[in-house]
Amino acid sequence: MKDLLIQLDHNSKKALYEQIYAFIRNEIADGKISHGEKLPSTRLLAGNLQISRSTVELAYEQLVAEGYLQTRPCAGYFVCDISGMYEWKQENRKETAEHIRQMEQKRSENYRITFSPFRVDEEHFPFRLWQKLNRNANFADDPSFFHAGDSRGDLRLRSVISSYLHRARGVNCEPEQIVLGAGNEYLLLLLAQMLGSNKVVAMEDYTYIQAAWTFQNMEYIVAPVGMDESGICIDEVKSYGADAVYVMPSHQFPIGTVMPLKRRMELLQWAAAEPDRYIIEDDHDSEFRYRGKPIPSLQGMDDGNHVIYLGTFSKSIAQSVRVSYMVLPKKLLGRYLSDCGFYSTTVPRIQQEVLYRFLENGDFERHLNRMKNVYKTKQECLLRLLKKQSWVKKIYGENAGFHVNVELNTTLSEAEVLALAEGKHIKLFGLSAYRLKKGEVQKPVILLLGYGNINEAQIKEGIEILSELLDPYVEKQG
Amino acid sequence: MKDLLIQLDHNSKKALYEQIYAFIRNEIADGKISHGEKLPSTRLLAGNLQISRSTVELAYEQLVAEGYLQTRPCAGYFVCDISGMYEWKQENRKETAEHIRQMEQKRSENYRITFSPFRVDEEHFPFRLWQKLNRNANFADDPSFFHAGDSRGDLRLRSVISSYLHRARGVNCEPEQIVLGAGNEYLLLLLAQMLGSNKVVAMEDYTYIQAAWTFQNMEYIVAPVGMDESGICIDEVKSYGADAVYVMPSHQFPIGTVMPLKRRMELLQWAAAEPDRYIIEDDHDSEFRYRGKPIPSLQGMDDGNHVIYLGTFSKSIAQSVRVSYMVLPKKLLGRYLSDCGFYSTTVPRIQQEVLYRFLENGDFERHLNRMKNVYKTKQECLLRLLKKQSWVKKIYGENAGFHVNVELNTTLSEAEVLALAEGKHIKLFGLSAYRLKKGEVQKPVILLLGYGNINEAQIKEGIEILSELLDPYVEKQG
Repeated sequence: MKDLLIQLDHNSKKALYEQIYAFIRNEIADGKISHGEKLPSTRLLAGNLQISRSTVELAYEQLVAEGYLQTRPCAGYFVCDISGMYEWKQENRKETAEHIRQMEQKRSENYRITFSPFRVDEEHFPFRLWQKLNRNANFADDPSFFHAGDSRGDLRLRSVISSYLHRARGVNCEPEQIVLGAGNEYLLLLLAQMLGSNKVVAMEDYTYIQAAWTFQNMEYIVAPVGMDESGICIDEVKSYGADAVYVMPSHQFPIGTVMPLKRRMELLQWAAAEPDRYIIEDDHDSEFRYRGKPIPSLQGMDDGNHVIYLGTFSKSIAQSVRVSYMVLPKKLLGRYLSDCGFYSTTVPRIQQEVLYRFLENGDFERHLNRMKNVYKTKQECLLRLLKKQSWVKKIYGENAGFHVNVELNTTLSEAEVLALAEGKHIKLFGLSAYRLKKGEVQKPVILLLGYGNINEAQIKEGIEILSELLDPYVEKQG
Repeated sequence: MKDLLIQLDHNSKKALYEQIYAFIRNEIADGKISHGEKLPSTRLLAGNLQISRSTVELAYEQLVAEGYLQTRPCAGYFVCDISGMYEWKQENRKETAEHIRQMEQKRSENYRITFSPFRVDEEHFPFRLWQKLNRNANFADDPSFFHAGDSRGDLRLRSVISSYLHRARGVNCEPEQIVLGAGNEYLLLLLAQMLGSNKVVAMEDYTYIQAAWTFQNMEYIVAPVGMDESGICIDEVKSYGADAVYVMPSHQFPIGTVMPLKRRMELLQWAAAEPDRYIIEDDHDSEFRYRGKPIPSLQGMDDGNHVIYLGTFSKSIAQSVRVSYMVLPKKLLGRYLSDCGFYSTTVPRIQQEVLYRFLENGDFERHLNRMKNVYKTKQECLLRLLKKQSWVKKIYGENAGFHVNVELNTTLSEAEVLALAEGKHIKLFGLSAYRLKKGEVQKPVILLLGYGNINEAQIKEGIEILSELLDPYVEKQG
């Protein structure tokens, strides 16, 4: 049995159980207590530390819940095997969540320039029009505005979304297949309830990390799958025995890959081989495509049974409107109604009405066309500047969206680059935050340079400052 | 082995697997196939029906997922035991979900009078004020309105909610403990992710049924606990080995019980006996109390560690605003941040701003006072009329909220009463829809007569029609 030399700080703000929990967790993570070792009983440890037994129990239970310990009846607590195939540990995630929270806090500390790949333009928003729509949608207009209404959202709004998706994205669906929700993660929470727990979902690694966390919260196993130049590797999907795969075929985040037809067909064939296999297609930002012809959705190529299509107004309007939509295959509609049909919609009725009017009279598509030009101009400015820099090795992912990926020519690590920029009040985003398989150091350093919410002057200023910072560390060519 | 005489309809809109699934499910539910019986293999049944094997597999897998069948390796599919302690079957729930959906549809069929216990008054809403607040909260005002902001919701809004809750409900909390979300169910989804799966949650039976379904979707075991005149029976909570208990101590829905101090203390003691036990206090409508002194929240009596407090603006403003709040014990804050802190808020930023202004300048509490009088007047009218009726045996639950419970003096069943009223385009709500333990016929018949969204003329007309319908069926006194 392992002896635990825990130093408790009774004056700490941190609760005693948390101190015990953190100590043991770190010992396990550092390999100081190994797989299979038995921990002292709660009674013994409580006696040694002169604290109540329930405090120790609480710490142990937390460790059990997080998969660090397991109990064996009548035998006690033993350390679990935390290595293995799905090694993307809870631990990493907690650190990342904390990291993101810190980032959120720092946001309010007013960076001089934020190269965010998520923020949308705030200068060219149709303020007047939006205000007019808001002013005109009142409770007094229609008594039904008081009621939450259909669980999936207002039928008229779902109808205009369905036409828009068909026209713009080649999506084939009836309004009845559309479910509105307050953000993609909420819709994924619903989906996980419908598909059932303990499924394996394969995800592109790198990916939209919040989706992975959502699946994990729903007790899904997230299988991180490698990508080649065509996107997700189907053989790896198969080797994981995945029940579902979450992909962004039209513009992969954060890499920018467009999945070619051949890979799409392979993916659809994989799904069609079993009746309850699904492809979750997150079509997050393909409204903003600057080069090449528009790429229709994977959903439109399917027989209607295997693709769950996700889209959002977070990028096409604003993150704060909190409206996303999910297109379900018809065969899942019954399951939706029985498992999730009792939930009231998460989108306020008036918000639905405003959106309906925005879409219905064509304003939305006019807005998209205007914004596409705005973003394209910003991107051209950024690319022009980047191409002159010796610290830039390679640029990719410039066909769509709000960011380009920049592979750096530098002797620094990603963390060092981010910290240097931070010192000059510039917020940068590194690729490694979107990695599922943690642990390996990201080499080469790749930045996600977002330009959605900065103007040309800020882009120029930002790149100038970055040049000052990065020029001294350019790697000499061998 | 059981032979299955399934008649497939190849012209039906219903998919073949659904027809097979529904047939077998009904056979099991009706007891025509018993616990332990073996079903024909997928190969055999597919051959008999001349359809593909994968179609049969899909039907079987659905039945496995729903707990009707189980697989034994190398042996095949067997019927599960669907009776037992937690006998509140998925089946019932599906029917109820379908029932609710039908009810929703019928709503649009324009009932003459709806005695809904959920709908709020739509005549006395402060339309002008709300429109003004809406008009004045624009994206142009503040760049931060574009961003989703804090995962828990805007800090200023959480601050005014925290003061309001302290003043009006005796809740002790800091703004940091408050999490806003698009409805109670969404907050329960978050809570279940934080507390972990496979927990047992004890609920009052009868209860707010959507909360039970939400817990079930999150793989919780819902333990239906009886109530006496003081509310939930603690001994039963203990006998189920519950990890959490979901209660409405200030005004139980749908019964109307107020939990007295002694039972509250017992409940708090139960929770305090283990470090990770929680009481979920749903304080859904105690803003509207008409008799006796206000009843402070259970949260305010706790040491701050065991009560999770839930409240909503659905009843105090409108169901369609989709804003609820959850007050977490401080010790759960870390878990919230690590497990759920990455979720963007589900409440649109502008909606938060409107609410903030409504609360901040006192309009909300003025609105509550005004509405309390509106509801009280309607309730008095209803009670006056009910007391004259021979079909009314007993009235209770009139101290708060939007409905009174009326025990009928009738030879009819609840379903018959509802159907009779439906024939006259009157929508009634029976108590049995809120029962967890299904199966037993509800006797005596108890109606939830809601008066929130009907005026005095409609109340009079409705009771007159009900009298015509029910007078012929009054039970003769023995």
